[in-house]
Formats: sequence, structure tokens, C-alpha cells
Amino acid sequence: MTFIMLGGYMGNVLRVDLSLGRISKEPLSEEMARKYVGTMGLGGRVLYDEVPPWVEPFDPANRLIFSTGPVTGSMTQTAGRHTVITKSPMTGYFGDASCGGYWGAELKFAGYDQVIVQGKATKPVYIWINDGAAEIRDASAYWGMDARETDRALCRDLGDKAVQVSCIGPAGENLVRYAAIMHDDAGRAAGRCGVGAVMGFMKLKAIAVRGHKRVPVANPDALREAILKVTSYYKESPQVQGLHAGGTPGYFAVGWSIGDSMSYNWQNENFKEFSQEKISWPGGYDLILAKTATCYTCLIACRRIANSGPDGPRKIEQGAEGVEYETLTFFGPSCGVDDVYTINKANDLCNLYGMDTISTASTIAFAMESFEKGLIDSKDTDGLALRFGNGDAVVEMVGKIARREGFGSLLAEGSRRAARTIGRGSEDFAMQVKGLEIAAHDPRAFQAGGGPHYATTVTGGRHTEGISLAFENFGAVSEPLGCPQPWDKAKSDPLQMVLVTKLFEDWVCMLNSMGYCYFSTEGRYGGKDDELNHISAYNAVTGLQMSVQDSLLVGERILNLRKAFNMRHGCTRSEDTLPKRLLTESNKRAGGAVVNLSQSLPEMYRLRGWDPATSKPTRAKLHELGLDDVAQDLWG
Amino acid sequence: MTFIMLGGYMGNVLRVDLSLGRISKEPLSEEMARKYVGTMGLGGRVLYDEVPPWVEPFDPANRLIFSTGPVTGSMTQTAGRHTVITKSPMTGYFGDASCGGYWGAELKFAGYDQVIVQGKATKPVYIWINDGAAEIRDASAYWGMDARETDRALCRDLGDKAVQVSCIGPAGENLVRYAAIMHDDAGRAAGRCGVGAVMGFMKLKAIAVRGHKRVPVANPDALREAILKVTSYYKESPQVQGLHAGGTPGYFAVGWSIGDSMSYNWQNENFKEFSQEKISWPGGYDLILAKTATCYTCLIACRRIANSGPDGPRKIEQGAEGVEYETLTFFGPSCGVDDVYTINKANDLCNLYGMDTISTASTIAFAMESFEKGLIDSKDTDGLALRFGNGDAVVEMVGKIARREGFGSLLAEGSRRAARTIGRGSEDFAMQVKGLEIAAHDPRAFQAGGGPHYATTVTGGRHTEGISLAFENFGAVSEPLGCPQPWDKAKSDPLQMVLVTKLFEDWVCMLNSMGYCYFSTEGRYGGKDDELNHISAYNAVTGLQMSVQDSLLVGERILNLRKAFNMRHGCTRSEDTLPKRLLTESNKRAGGAVVNLSQSLPEMYRLRGWDPATSKPTRAKLHELGLDDVAQDLWG
Repeated sequence: MTFIMLGGYMGNVLRVDLSLGRISKEPLSEEMARKYVGTMGLGGRVLYDEVPPWVEPFDPANRLIFSTGPVTGSMTQTAGRHTVITKSPMTGYFGDASCGGYWGAELKFAGYDQVIVQGKATKPVYIWINDGAAEIRDASAYWGMDARETDRALCRDLGDKAVQVSCIGPAGENLVRYAAIMHDDAGRAAGRCGVGAVMGFMKLKAIAVRGHKRVPVANPDALREAILKVTSYYKESPQVQGLHAGGTPGYFAVGWSIGDSMSYNWQNENFKEFSQEKISWPGGYDLILAKTATCYTCLIACRRIANSGPDGPRKIEQGAEGVEYETLTFFGPSCGVDDVYTINKANDLCNLYGMDTISTASTIAFAMESFEKGLIDSKDTDGLALRFGNGDAVVEMVGKIARREGFGSLLAEGSRRAARTIGRGSEDFAMQVKGLEIAAHDPRAFQAGGGPHYATTVTGGRHTEGISLAFENFGAVSEPLGCPQPWDKAKSDPLQMVLVTKLFEDWVCMLNSMGYCYFSTEGRYGGKDDELNHISAYNAVTGLQMSVQDSLLVGERILNLRKAFNMRHGCTRSEDTLPKRLLTESNKRAGGAVVNLSQSLPEMYRLRGWDPATSKPTRAKLHELGLDDVAQDLWG
Repeated sequence: MTFIMLGGYMGNVLRVDLSLGRISKEPLSEEMARKYVGTMGLGGRVLYDEVPPWVEPFDPANRLIFSTGPVTGSMTQTAGRHTVITKSPMTGYFGDASCGGYWGAELKFAGYDQVIVQGKATKPVYIWINDGAAEIRDASAYWGMDARETDRALCRDLGDKAVQVSCIGPAGENLVRYAAIMHDDAGRAAGRCGVGAVMGFMKLKAIAVRGHKRVPVANPDALREAILKVTSYYKESPQVQGLHAGGTPGYFAVGWSIGDSMSYNWQNENFKEFSQEKISWPGGYDLILAKTATCYTCLIACRRIANSGPDGPRKIEQGAEGVEYETLTFFGPSCGVDDVYTINKANDLCNLYGMDTISTASTIAFAMESFEKGLIDSKDTDGLALRFGNGDAVVEMVGKIARREGFGSLLAEGSRRAARTIGRGSEDFAMQVKGLEIAAHDPRAFQAGGGPHYATTVTGGRHTEGISLAFENFGAVSEPLGCPQPWDKAKSDPLQMVLVTKLFEDWVCMLNSMGYCYFSTEGRYGGKDDELNHISAYNAVTGLQMSVQDSLLVGERILNLRKAFNMRHGCTRSEDTLPKRLLTESNKRAGGAVVNLSQSLPEMYRLRGWDPATSKPTRAKLHELGLDDVAQDLWG
């Protein structure tokens, strides 16, 4: 029985308490759905309300929230996403990880918008959700299995190949802080913020889902019309077509040319030259590319499917998930590795163990620099010569991290904690913000917007929270968001880019919360009707009448809610900064730039309505966003 | 080689990094020793400096600091103590646990004032400190052993019965949040704040110590004189002699008579009458009392040594450590148990498993009330009828907690987290402050001082941070501290008691930091020269010329340093409160009192120089205390 009057929602939340073994179905609040939309918004409000500041990430009072958006599972484009929300073991603050594939849509078909998991089982369990019914089951037989094996074993044991599995591998079981939650035959990850480690702490191996319901659509005719517009736009857009052709690895050559893609733990040429041709696409990458694939209802089809590679220690399963841009850059040049088979292998191992490739590879690159500088030696690394370019060491270290063996156990804590242990100046080149390793987009290549963005991003070093990279370098348009025009990197006032960033960030919060993929539209493609089409589809699904400007306000509300969570949980203004390297060492490929925050950070606080002394959202701003109760929490 | 010019210090700090397997000797800073004295002060400054807010309690970047004071190991009275300091897994804030016995003195004899442990071993280890030399050794053979077995096995394997062992039992290994660190044949505990859980997280089973050095004394003649004064005072003091005769259990009958000792999870007669005679001393307690014992250089000799009890499931080893007052009250009336053998058994199990008896028993009592109220049932408790008075269930639950079996795993998280899981109003009777269970002194029996004390105590529900209990009820004098005189509970202004509490708290910080036992003098005995004698001995040992008023300033500095740690680590004014029960349900045996914080809490902030809106120490107060660098951290 559904009480919610908005289309797009199934109206039900599944709550599972693993400590007491209790499971219950709760109605979704329509008021909350209107205010916080879905995914990180709706789930974020649950996290804000249910997890007080004293709760630690590894804590039975933490929550692990699997949250869809209203368009998830509908027939519009890129509607297969869900987000996992928790207090992050990487940062200690708000954590979320978005995931593609098919699991989110399947959860809707099973009748639920959200699954809220709390507590901690004493023995391994999994949750089986089958067309509304749900139960906690023993998972002892699956504990220790890698993510792909788990996915297949559950489909087999549940007797239905169409079952969608969300699960952890050994890394999550072993509380590797940046463990991921894997989906879709270990191909799609809710990768960042350590959501898989929280799942492992809870002793929750998997959530298997199967359903046959349909997502209710308020206005099917309008939806059809919106879908037609989006798909025709996709067919015309050179950016979408580029993504279709090359996937995310196709960006690598571009990123390299503008200094956005880094080498040698962000030292770049300051350490050594790197030949990027051997791994870029088209080029060396073709050796490990078998074909392409797609997520639920997506014409972009940016997924790459891998070749196994030649026989030997680098061989992987033919048809496994291919290497993405971030993985390529970090396991490649940032570790000094130019062998695509090594990168292919490291990527596959991360998927099997269930680990975020960004944090894994970036932490290894950090350790390599520590080794090269003599801060650690082979006695510390269990005999491994952890030098840049040593592909064998990279592959071995991935396994040691996942199993928490020897030196791997220290790296399993992430670069911030590893640097705290290694000391002796290594913190200056631990490339993280708020404890989360920065993604493979160097803010020195778009410092006007990227600097204040990375410094203030609620979840740390993310690239999917609204970076201004494309706008800043290629002058994308994004008229519907109200971005200042025109922009000329050489001539325009760089502070303009702070406003662009702020608008992108708000938009991305809304985009994610509706249930869309980041690639669906983030203001980066520059199409005039781009955002409008997505809002149209959202309106058609839900029956609402939102404008793009309305949606920006909702996005801003969600961003500020997450920011307020951080402030309540001990985050301070001093966390709004970047690693020293980015502030002081120039990036030659990006024109010798460093990031200068002296003006852009205060400007971001001003635009955001955040108190310049403490970075807390002001009472006035929170009131404007309808967050008076949050203001009460922050200001009394 | 010692560079420190003050007597009392060995001049060396042992630093052990378990992640990298590194061990080093560092000189103790004389400046720090003068400013922060020892134990929680000197160790507290290390914690403050080395553990930033983003570090979690279970984190390789946390620290576990074993810290002595300057009088520790000297020949003055009660000089056997050390304190373990860490970021607490119970509270998430500053944590410390003081311990008697002989370990602290032995560490000094081995040449060290402090041991700082950091990192996390991948396999169980112990640290062996032998007359200056120190090494990390494999502890696989001891992992899983109980604390007594560990202590004896290490003495045996190291071939020296005089080796002093600090170790964890299975509770610490299993990360029971309130695991203790045991010493002295599992007889003396660094019990509170979960220090043993941090040790277990680090995979550190034990620190074994042996030494033959002497603690340097600046002025031996003056020390002899001071010792003579202290010992003659001890012989004359009726309070000290009472403690000698009855130990802490001797207080139970008194505590009961004034409503200080609670029953049925602090419900007292509101739930049911309890017959206290069967367990008090003299009385029923005599059945489990074999003899008395002492810690290093202590004439008080408050330790009780237990009888085994009759054959059967309650039998324990003859001569094991006896039941203390806190343990007696919580496993006794607070769990509704009036059988001394059950209490004796539960106490012994806690010592063997290595668990804080206060948090263990109080959390069980909380669960019993939840059971009686129908918030949980026998399906949740693995079939146990967890009703008040069910001694079998208490004993079984102690083991289940330590082993983290079934429902025991939830209770292993402490009452705050258990209540968060059980919900439905149970948080109102989870008897904790800041996550730490309140000791067995009911602030409703001394609400004028006890209310603001417990509400603001840095480490949560402690009874050893300077409670005004004796002063408030029996009008102790404490002239040297400057307490307002005279005090008449019936007639005096209750706000006077806030000042008394503040002075006691400052004094106790200094007393602890010098290395004295809390029972040595805490202003509660009322002897005129009491505090003076202890400062005289401290001056004689160190060569300093401190007055009692000087020492109060140092104590206040240490208290504010710990408070500042909390504020940096996310603690807010809203944590300065008490469980709802104490604010709203009257205690009949204490004259029907409830705690009223409306005036006393603001008064405490005023006296302390803490900002009334946020509870942060003001810049002016921190400046007065020589903590300008801390002010910079808190206020920018």
C-alpha cells in the first residue's frame, strides 16, 4: 500500500536492523520526498536525522542507506542509478557513493525506494528482497568470496539470473577503509567514501534484489516527449558521442594535454617524463578493450568491457569490466606504469576485492613517493621495491591491501592515515582532501573553480560533485543554470568561475538526487536545452512542475544539509584546504599553475552564505533553504 | 642519558610504532614536565598534539599513552600509579584510565616516564621493556588468553616473577568498547574509557616491564619529612582508617543510607525495594572476603582479596582480586542481585576478560530494564530472561559480551549505542554521560555539585574527577583548596557547591598528574594539612617549590587542555547534560531529589571561564593558563 501521491516513488522504505535481526517496511514521507527528492538528498536527510555526532563510521549506530531517486527505474535516460550514504570511514563526515548498473532500478521494481541498514550482525548475513518481501539470511557460505563470485553464487543459489546483487568483496570484509560496494557482476561500484567498509563492519555481505513492479509515472505522455528530446540531443551532442565512442578512457589524451591527468603522484615532470601514448585511447588502450556496454536505459553506453590480455600473471577474465579513466590515470602514470595489462589487472583485482580504484591507486602512488624519498624502505614494505613504474609491486600491493597483509594494512587506511604514520613531511604529498584521495582531475588545470571546489566539497576529493573543468578550459555554456557568459580563460575574471562552480555543485546535487547519472547532464556539455530536458522528464515522472531554477534551490538545500552534517560531526574550516603540493608546486602541462585559494575560497563562502570565520552555513542561508531545524542544530 | 633537571623523572619516553614495527627512545621535555606534570597532564598534551580531530578511536593514528607521574615509583605514599590516555571508543573524546598496583613504578625503574604506542600491528604482539632496552615481540601464543593467564605466562616465559604486566584479555581483543587494561595478576585495572579496546585494535596484547633503576629525588631529606607527615596523618584520619578497614565496599552501607548507591538501573524504590544487608560490609560481603592487600607504597591498603566461595558455578580462584564498591553496587542492587557469590563471580569474569565492571554491569542493568519494559524480549537476548535479579543471566551475559556473542555483541557497544539500537525511549534510562556509564554515585544524592560535575566532566560519567559527594553530605573542610566555609546542606546556597566542585576537579587533575592515588587526598578527608603534605612530597621529589594554589592552577590547565581536546573533536555544549532519569525522576532515599542544572551549569561555565553558549574555554581563560596555542586552535 502506497500513500505517496508523487509519481516516481514506490512509497516504501525497508529498514533492517542487523543487531536485533529486525526488518520492517516504513512508508516514505511525501514531505521529505518533495523536499529532498531522492538518493543523497533523501538518504542524506535520514543520515542527518539518525546519526548523531558521537557515532563513528564503524559503529552499530551508523547507517548504510541505499537510496534511489524518483527517475530511477523509469524509462528515461540514465535511470539506473542509486546512491549509498553513510558516515564515511575515510573522512568521518558525510559519505556517499553513486552507482550505475541495474541494481537501483531493480530495487524500485521490488517495491522500495530506500533500504536503511543499521546495527551489526554477529555472523555474516545477506538481505534478500523479493518483490516486496524481505528477509535476513545467513551468508557464511559467501563470506570470503570475491565480489564476482558472490554475485554469481547468489544468482545461482536464488535460482534467478535476473537477481541484482549489491555486495562486498574481501576488502570490505577486512575493513579496508576505501572498500567499495560492487554491483552487476562486480562491474559497477559504489566506489568512494568507504561505503563497503561500513557494510563489512556490519557483517553484511550482500543485498540481493528481484522485482516485477513498475515505477509509477504521473504523466506518461510528457515523459515520452521528454525522452525523445533527450535521446535526440544525445545523438547530436559531440560530447555525448565522444563518451559513447571512447568511454571515460577517451578523455585521457585530452586530460593529459591540458595537464589535468597527473603522473608520479602528481609530481608530473617535476619527477620524470611519462609517455602517455602507450595507454591512451585510441592507442595502447585498444589492447585491453573488447567491446562496450551500458547501464539501465542508457544510450551513452560509456562502459568498456575488457580483453583478458595474453596468458600470464596479468591475464584476467575475458569480458570483465574494463578500465575507466580514473583507474587508468592513477594505476598508470600516477604509479609510473605504462603497461596497459598491468593496469587492466590492477583494475580487475580492485573490482574482485571490492575496492575504490581511485583511493587504492592514489595511496599506492603516495607510498611509492615515500619510498623514492627514503621515508620508508623495503624493511617496511615487506621487501617490495615500491618504486614508480614497478608494475609487479603495484599488483602485489593491491592484494596486500585487500587482505590487510603487512604493509598493505597501513595502506588500507588510506593516504591521510598512512602519512600520519610515516610522517617526516609525507603529509604534504598525501593527495587527499578531508581524508579522501582526490580524483584524477588536477585542480591546477582549472584552479579558478577547481581550487575552491575541491577545498570545500563535503565528501572530500571528489570529481563528481560539479567540477568546472570543461567550462573553465573549453568554455561550455550552461545557460539554463545562469552561468555568467562569456568566459575566456585568458581574459575573464577568475572569480567568475567560483559562481560557475557553485551553480554546477547545486545542479549536481539535484541531478544525483533525481536519480540521473552524472554523465547525463552536468552543465558540461553546453547544450541549451540539456538541463531543461532532464527536468522535464523528472516533472513528467513525478507530476511536479519544477523549473531549472527551482531545482537549483533544491540542490543547494541538499548540499547545505550535507555540509551541516559535517559541521555537526566536527568538521572545521581548517579542513577546507588542499594538499600542500597543489598550493605550492607548479604543474607545467597546465601552464605552470598552482592553486591559489586566497580569493576564491572567501568568494565561495560569500556565494554560499557560509560564515567566513567558521565555514558554517549561516542561519539566514539555512532559513532561505527551508532548513530552520538544521540552523537550530548549528547555531542554537 | 637524561637531560631533564627535575627530580622524579627518568627523562625518557619510549615510542613504539606498531604499523612500521619501529621503536625509539625520546627525551622527555622538561618544559612539558613543568607545565603538565605527568600522567593525564603530560600524556594528555601528547594526545592533544598528536591526534587531530579526524582520527577515530579505532585508528592507527590514535595513540595509547602509558604515562606515570613524577612521584610514581618514589617512596612516598600511594606512588604506584600510572594512567593510560587515548581517544576513547566510548565517548569519541579525551579518554583516560588510572591504575594502581606496581606496573607504573616498574616502568620508572626500567627508565621510562611514558610509553607512547601508535599504529596497528598485523599480528598480535607484546612489548618487552627490560631496564632501558625495549623490543616488539610476537604474541600469537598469548592471544586469546585471559588476563590472569597472560600475566602469569609472560612472567613464566620471561623467567622473572617480578616482571610487571599490563595486558588485555579477550574483551580487548574483541573490541568490547569498554575493555580494560589489566595489571598485577589481573587484579588492578586501567578500567574506564575503553583503553583496552584501543589496545586490542592495535593488536597489542601486553607490555611487560622490568627494571632496577631508582627514581631520582631532588631533596631526600625533605621527602623523608613529608612522608612522615603523610603517614602519621593517615594513621590518625578516621576516613583513611575506614578505607583501610572496609576497603571501598565499606562505603556501600553509607552510600545506601544517603541514596548514593542505586538499585534496578537507578530506578531504586520506584521499581522495587532492595535489601542491601545481604551484600554490605560488615555483613554478607564477609562471605567473599579473604584478606586485604596493597598497591606500591600504600598504607591505606584498600584492596580486598576474595574467597573462592563454595564449589559450583560461582566458584572463583581463591585469592583473586576482590569486589570493589562500584562493582558491588552495579552487579548487586543495580542488576537486582543480592547474592554475593554471583557478584564475586561476575567481578572475577570481568577481570579475566578484561572489562570495566562499571560499564559492563551498568549496561547489563540497562538491558534488564529494557527487557522488563518489553522493549526487547527473549528472541533478542538469545533466550535469556534478562530480568532484574536473574544472577545466572548476569553471569552468562558477562561472557557473551566479552566474546561478542549474540546479544552480547550489542551490549559490548555500551549503553549509549545499545539504546540507540533498541530505541523507543530507552535512551532516557541509558545511564551514561558522553557515552560513558556513570559511576555508582548518584548525583541526586549530591545534586548541587554532582549535577554540574557529571554534566561537564571531560571523560563522561566518572567518579574520580573530583566529586563533591563527601563535602556536600558530610561537610568536609578542604581549607587549603580555598573551599567556601562553612557548608550546611540544609541551609547553604547550593551554588557554593559549584565552586567546591570546580576546586576539587582542578585539584584531582593535579593529584593524578603528580602520580598519586585518588584516595591519597582529594579534599574529601578534610584534614587541614592533607593537600599540603602531598605537595610537600611532590616538591621534595622534583625540587620544585609549588604551593597548593600553584598546583590548582596547573590542575586547571590540565583540565582545560582535556576539555579543549573534546571541543576540537566535535564535542558540543549539548553533551553537557545528564540522562533524563536523573533530571526528572526523584530519588527517595536522597530526600526525593532530582538534579537541577538550570543554575548550576551556567555557574560552572562562569567559574570555569567557559563560553556559556558553546562551553568552549574562552581565549582569556586559556591565556591565563598559559594555553595560548590551544586558544589559537579553538578560536583562530
